[in-house]
Amino acid sequence: MADANNVSSSESRGFCLWFTGLSGSGKSTITTHLVKELRKRGSKLEVLDGDVVRENLSKGLGFSKEDRDTNIRRIAFVADLLSRNGVPVITAAISPYREIRDEARELMGDRFIEVFVKASVEVCAERDVKGLYEKAFKGEIKEFTGVSDPYEPPLNPELTLDTEHDSAEEDAQKILTLLEERQLIPAAQPA
Amino acid sequence: MADANNVSSSESRGFCLWFTGLSGSGKSTITTHLVKELRKRGSKLEVLDGDVVRENLSKGLGFSKEDRDTNIRRIAFVADLLSRNGVPVITAAISPYREIRDEARELMGDRFIEVFVKASVEVCAERDVKGLYEKAFKGEIKEFTGVSDPYEPPLNPELTLDTEHDSAEEDAQKILTLLEERQLIPAAQPA
Repeated sequence: MADANNVSSSESRGFCLWFTGLSGSGKSTITTHLVKELRKRGSKLEVLDGDVVRENLSKGLGFSKEDRDTNIRRIAFVADLLSRNGVPVITAAISPYREIRDEARELMGDRFIEVFVKASVEVCAERDVKGLYEKAFKGEIKEFTGVSDPYEPPLNPELTLDTEHDSAEEDAQKILTLLEERQLIPAAQPA
Repeated sequence: MADANNVSSSESRGFCLWFTGLSGSGKSTITTHLVKELRKRGSKLEVLDGDVVRENLSKGLGFSKEDRDTNIRRIAFVADLLSRNGVPVITAAISPYREIRDEARELMGDRFIEVFVKASVEVCAERDVKGLYEKAFKGEIKEFTGVSDPYEPPLNPELTLDTEHDSAEEDAQKILTLLEERQLIPAAQPA
């Protein structure tokens, strides 16, 4: 068994947790739990979620396939810059297209950890307090992933999180376990 | 006097060397010398030059004031992400507008080190092997900084490099000295 205690925060290796999943699948909620726990362990960390990136790197881009691809490539470029310098990164954009996620994987090599945040369109729509899915079903929002725009689930993600059945805390714990096994973060201190 | 030997590469503090200057002023040449020396000292380092950023973060942007500002803001966003995580960054874009450079300064605080790479339009034009200045003088290239587009020199840069009189090696050394004084890099090992 890997001795995760060997990993101290000062010698942290970079990695990129690449979340992919529908709007409402749970990417942000799991990220929130995960960030709390990783910070407790003294890990450096940056979160590149869809909104942050659209604001700071991709203003002006829309939701066509081309624009989505450009947006995701920019996220990958920045995630690579950070992770290759030892800074862990969580990306939490929908990133619907397999090909572009695979480009990110190729760019980052074994630093890239794809996490499929899985929930059906129906469950995501039920959770949706902003009513975006309802508008998409009515055709009032065009190019809405999972409704009027494609979502291509990963074929071989490092982790699949079933958010229809697990809580966000449980899912965050699954990720922490994976990171510990790979000796990317120190093990939790006994309470 | 600062004891720069206290700084080891493993505990490097992040900073952003923000070069600004005309096309042909010497930003890239100085960067090349600097990178070589910094890598020798074991420093992590990322270079965000104009071309890298236009390719990876700003494809589709032009050279209007608005587009230039957007481009520079993206560089600043990424430079901040890196430097706040302890990764030194060199940005080597023209960055002609004072206001946007000052935004970058505000974002990064004392991690931001503005380096004015100074040479007159005439000298830059003489150096220009690609003939860009000639085309700009003839009006064949629009919005060319220093010719048909503004360049606002910094008012209080941390360092001004006079590339009309100093060699690129000398200028790189001036930067290294400043970084040593600020204990941002370890002192050079005696030969």
